[in-house]
Amino acid sequence: MKIVETNAAPNPRRVRIFLAEKGIEVPYEQFALNIENIRSDQFASLNPMRQVPILVLDDGECICETMAICRYFEELQPEPRLFGGTALEKARIEMWNRRAELGLFFAVAQAFRHLHPKMSEREVPQVADWGVANKSKAIERLGLLDQRLHETEFVAGDSYSVADITTLVAVDFMAAARIDRPEEFGGVVRWYEEVSTRPSAGA
Amino acid sequence: MKIVETNAAPNPRRVRIFLAEKGIEVPYEQFALNIENIRSDQFASLNPMRQVPILVLDDGECICETMAICRYFEELQPEPRLFGGTALEKARIEMWNRRAELGLFFAVAQAFRHLHPKMSEREVPQVADWGVANKSKAIERLGLLDQRLHETEFVAGDSYSVADITTLVAVDFMAAARIDRPEEFGGVVRWYEEVSTRPSAGA
Repeated sequence: MKIVETNAAPNPRRVRIFLAEKGIEVPYEQFALNIENIRSDQFASLNPMRQVPILVLDDGECICETMAICRYFEELQPEPRLFGGTALEKARIEMWNRRAELGLFFAVAQAFRHLHPKMSEREVPQVADWGVANKSKAIERLGLLDQRLHETEFVAGDSYSVADITTLVAVDFMAAARIDRPEEFGGVVRWYEEVSTRPSAGA
Repeated sequence: MKIVETNAAPNPRRVRIFLAEKGIEVPYEQFALNIENIRSDQFASLNPMRQVPILVLDDGECICETMAICRYFEELQPEPRLFGGTALEKARIEMWNRRAELGLFFAVAQAFRHLHPKMSEREVPQVADWGVANKSKAIERLGLLDQRLHETEFVAGDSYSVADITTLVAVDFMAAARIDRPEEFGGVVRWYEEVSTRPSAGA
């Protein structure tokens, strides 16, 4: 198997961190996200959504979508459990991962896609007002995570999980989207120091 | 336990269909999504994201996010498996569920939230250009699902899964978002006839 990805893009990084936490090595193949490649039939044949990362299995089947790839490896090698063990753990982690993803990560991505000049060919139409609105949404939702991180060590509770990976990548993505990280979010600052210095963060 | 929900909203319907497929009965408590209720401290205490549905456990813990609630019940009662059994099935269903959700469902929701007059207090600012752009995105992504449904009986393959629930609710949500369903999408038409007449669809 191999993973087709783009090293600088945020979703591939989520998968790399996930695999690093599990100690799983998979060969990576770089895909340049330029407009010609994105529009190519070859890319669409791997993923009709024209997104990376893509896990290509030995028989050629493609598993797309970051969370689908992570869940596949969670099943193949359950430990350390990054999606939880019991029903309640799994539900809590899924809840917090989605709050981090649908709340924060998506808002940051929308701000980036709709305001950054280099996205003008890929996000058509770019709607600047929507990009600006998402800068505010991102801060508001980071505030919710900040409240949470005053109460718990990690985003989903006592243990590091996929929700921390999503949040870390979203927070680092804020720089590209030109959203300043509020210094008063002490819970986030404390947590960021902890998760960003794990070896996996550099994957 | 109980589920706090709003009967007419699309995400609660996803949970109701999911539970109906499993034959699980949970008491529902209706929550009116008017602006006073949405802004209330009581709602924020149940879910800081101020969204329904919310699963309230017997000890008061709240599990929010539609997919987290569904996964909780999948763990409590695995059969019939709506998220798949093997690692590969789970990965495929997650991939297709996310294509249906992040692709189609979200586009329909954005069109609804940014164009419908009754959402003007809840989606601030409403960005009409973004709503219009999402009508096109919704049709494009329904087209991808249509291609898929010419090849497989259900969205994720041979078996009914949570990906069918997400797609069904998204397709029905198109009416509220005033997006016409293209009649030439024969794969979707064939599949819709099948899944919309299952008893669970009326849940």
